[in-house]
Amino acid sequence: MSTIKPPADPESNPRVKAVFDDIRATRKTDFINNLWRSLAFDPALLEKTWTEVKQVMATPSEFDPLTKELIYIAVSVANSCSYCVHSHTAAARAQGMTDAQHAELLAIISLAAKTNHLVTGLQVPVDVAFDAGASDHD
Amino acid sequence: MSTIKPPADPESNPRVKAVFDDIRATRKTDFINNLWRSLAFDPALLEKTWTEVKQVMATPSEFDPLTKELIYIAVSVANSCSYCVHSHTAAARAQGMTDAQHAELLAIISLAAKTNHLVTGLQVPVDVAFDAGASDHD
Amino acid sequence: MSTIKPPADPESNPRVKAVFDDIRATRKTDFINNLWRSLAFDPALLEKTWTEVKQVMATPSEFDPLTKELIYIAVSVANSCSYCVHSHTAAARAQGMTDAQHAELLAIISLAAKTNHLVTGLQVPVDVAFDAGASDHD
Amino acid sequence: MSTIKPPADPESNPRVKAVFDDIRATRKTDFINNLWRSLAFDPALLEKTWTEVKQVMATPSEFDPLTKELIYIAVSVANSCSYCVHSHTAAARAQGMTDAQHAELLAIISLAAKTNHLVTGLQVPVDVAFDAGASDHD
Amino acid sequence: MSTIKPPADPESNPRVKAVFDDIRATRKTDFINNLWRSLAFDPALLEKTWTEVKQVMATPSEFDPLTKELIYIAVSVANSCSYCVHSHTAAARAQGMTDAQHAELLAIISLAAKTNHLVTGLQVPVDVAFDAGASDHD
Amino acid sequence: MSTIKPPADPESNPRVKAVFDDIRATRKTDFINNLWRSLAFDPALLEKTWTEVKQVMATPSEFDPLTKELIYIAVSVANSCSYCVHSHTAAARAQGMTDAQHAELLAIISLAAKTNHLVTGLQVPVDVAFDAGASDHD
Repeated sequence: MSTIKPPADPESNPRVKAVFDDIRATRKTDFINNLWRSLAFDPALLEKTWTEVKQVMATPSEFDPLTKELIYIAVSVANSCSYCVHSHTAAARAQGMTDAQHAELLAIISLAAKTNHLVTGLQVPVDVAFDAGASDHD
Repeated sequence: MSTIKPPADPESNPRVKAVFDDIRATRKTDFINNLWRSLAFDPALLEKTWTEVKQVMATPSEFDPLTKELIYIAVSVANSCSYCVHSHTAAARAQGMTDAQHAELLAIISLAAKTNHLVTGLQVPVDVAFDAGASDHD
Repeated sequence: MSTIKPPADPESNPRVKAVFDDIRATRKTDFINNLWRSLAFDPALLEKTWTEVKQVMATPSEFDPLTKELIYIAVSVANSCSYCVHSHTAAARAQGMTDAQHAELLAIISLAAKTNHLVTGLQVPVDVAFDAGASDHD
Repeated sequence: MSTIKPPADPESNPRVKAVFDDIRATRKTDFINNLWRSLAFDPALLEKTWTEVKQVMATPSEFDPLTKELIYIAVSVANSCSYCVHSHTAAARAQGMTDAQHAELLAIISLAAKTNHLVTGLQVPVDVAFDAGASDHD
Repeated sequence: MSTIKPPADPESNPRVKAVFDDIRATRKTDFINNLWRSLAFDPALLEKTWTEVKQVMATPSEFDPLTKELIYIAVSVANSCSYCVHSHTAAARAQGMTDAQHAELLAIISLAAKTNHLVTGLQVPVDVAFDAGASDHD
Repeated sequence: MSTIKPPADPESNPRVKAVFDDIRATRKTDFINNLWRSLAFDPALLEKTWTEVKQVMATPSEFDPLTKELIYIAVSVANSCSYCVHSHTAAARAQGMTDAQHAELLAIISLAAKTNHLVTGLQVPVDVAFDAGASDHD
């Protein structure tokens, strides 16, 4: 199901074709997943989204590509985005994530969720020692 | 503020003292942060929580300690746990996280949240290619 | 799938029929969507829910009907309610939402989610200037 | 802090006074907590909110008052509503919740959060056996 | 769909078989639901998860089994975990939850969500009277 | 509190000064709120965030400025971002939001949250009529 009607022939629009071509070149695959096909309903939104995803996720940076995918999965699980969990788990596997690493990732995510709820239930006051900015703000 | 009354002298309880001693030994610091002081109101809950946190976060495993903290922060931000964001950002810094890495972590987390909401708004159908288990589950 | 068994012939119950009739009259359509068919398992819960939805969403008020649907979609996306995103996007389209407006709505929602997570990751202290009630509450 | 300016003398408005009087009579206390003082900025919203809270939470029903508060706390923790966690934990204590029950409540809430995230990370398909409504909905 | 490939014959692994046998004995049923079949991809994660679920949910404690399931459902709804809502609603029914109780549970959960969002929108300051721990921390 | 140390004199960095100058010019005010002061710890992240916020929120588009703020507030409440609720409520007031509109906004947000949780608890199947894209995606 979908809340928008994806174009039947998205690459007939040259702006869409340019993005799809860049996705294929960047990822070295012919596969264009449904997110990009859906976003093709609005070429400007497609362009902006891909530009940002490419810049953050597919450009050499402080973290290696697998670490970035692990962080992405963690957020996607906590935000309960089924599609995103699927697509970024596939991406992590493409970056070499093993079953043992997948199991550990799930153990960390679920432990974090557990202590998040425990701390919120207790309303633990933040330790003064954790404040990196106290003397600069207000 | 807090929803429980932490014990005024938690280490007078030998079960609490044993956990606090293990926290100090494991982390090589005298600092016991408020989460553990709060959990001291129920020694069994304190013991179980620390045992699991130590096993997942402070035992050599598939991921290095900094990577584990990055994942923990990601979940804590998405679950809007203020205390947890503070405590695990402090832990990540103790593991060597630089300002540049912190900025990139925030860029990944916030991009993930952005596409999570975009995908949920579009209700993008999951690509069949992402299903790792299709032939096993019906 | 569903966690309750919707009645096979809901309108045989006069309380359910009265609500369904009011839905049809208010919305000027014969279509009763699954939410109301599901709620028919408990006529009191059905009545209360419809009464409130009708009062807030289908009564002339400060905001026009499309604006109300945009707000409803925004909350439903952030709460990851797939059914609600579908039903209120359909309602917004029935109120005249264009593809361009839909794309902009998604851009605002996803930007808000992005900065929500950025702010939570930074734990930005609230500016005193934003406090509307400081002098009244302690 | 607050996003609205609560009226300095809320009970000078007879609609507000009527609600506050009913809160005091229903709860057998003179204490009016800040939620109601805040809602006094819009008497209609105050009336509707109190009417519903009183009907659901303060009327004899299927569940005893403590069980209702435990459910309320569970939702409030998962939704990360600091004020709500505080106010409903106080209400649960007023209904007799002991420290041992509080600790168990937190253990259940945090375990549920843990498995929620584990299941979402795994994207476990729903067992057909769990569908209560399969034959009624298509 | 699933992000992992569940083993085709999970009980050929003796660690998995031991957990499945314990699930059957504890629950007095031959039915092993998909969560456990999915977790079988990592026997250690399966063991730890079942051990904790059994200890918290299937051991005599402060709350009766139905109350525990109600709390579990409440968290699962707020965290938008479709599988968990299904499995724990089935568990609550197995513990005797009636349609009237289910309707009331949903009324409490949805009212809590409503006031959670109202309070967060108002940013109501926490009443000093709700602080159980003020004199002990900071 | 804060997880980063905001620069003591942010405008000594010319990239930060350029952004701050543009914020002042765009908003026609000398006030720079804490989000931007915090982001100054990483000029690149500051630039990208402001560029996007300005493009989406401060450029003439399909929706008027107040409508955009209402949507932003709705997402921020559902994501439980205290700072964001404060800052965007202040922005909505600056765009002319009255107390009556604020009360209605809160009524819509909290009703949406209520039905989101009700629908998730019921696991209502999506009506086929709501699918805008069925024939295009498989």
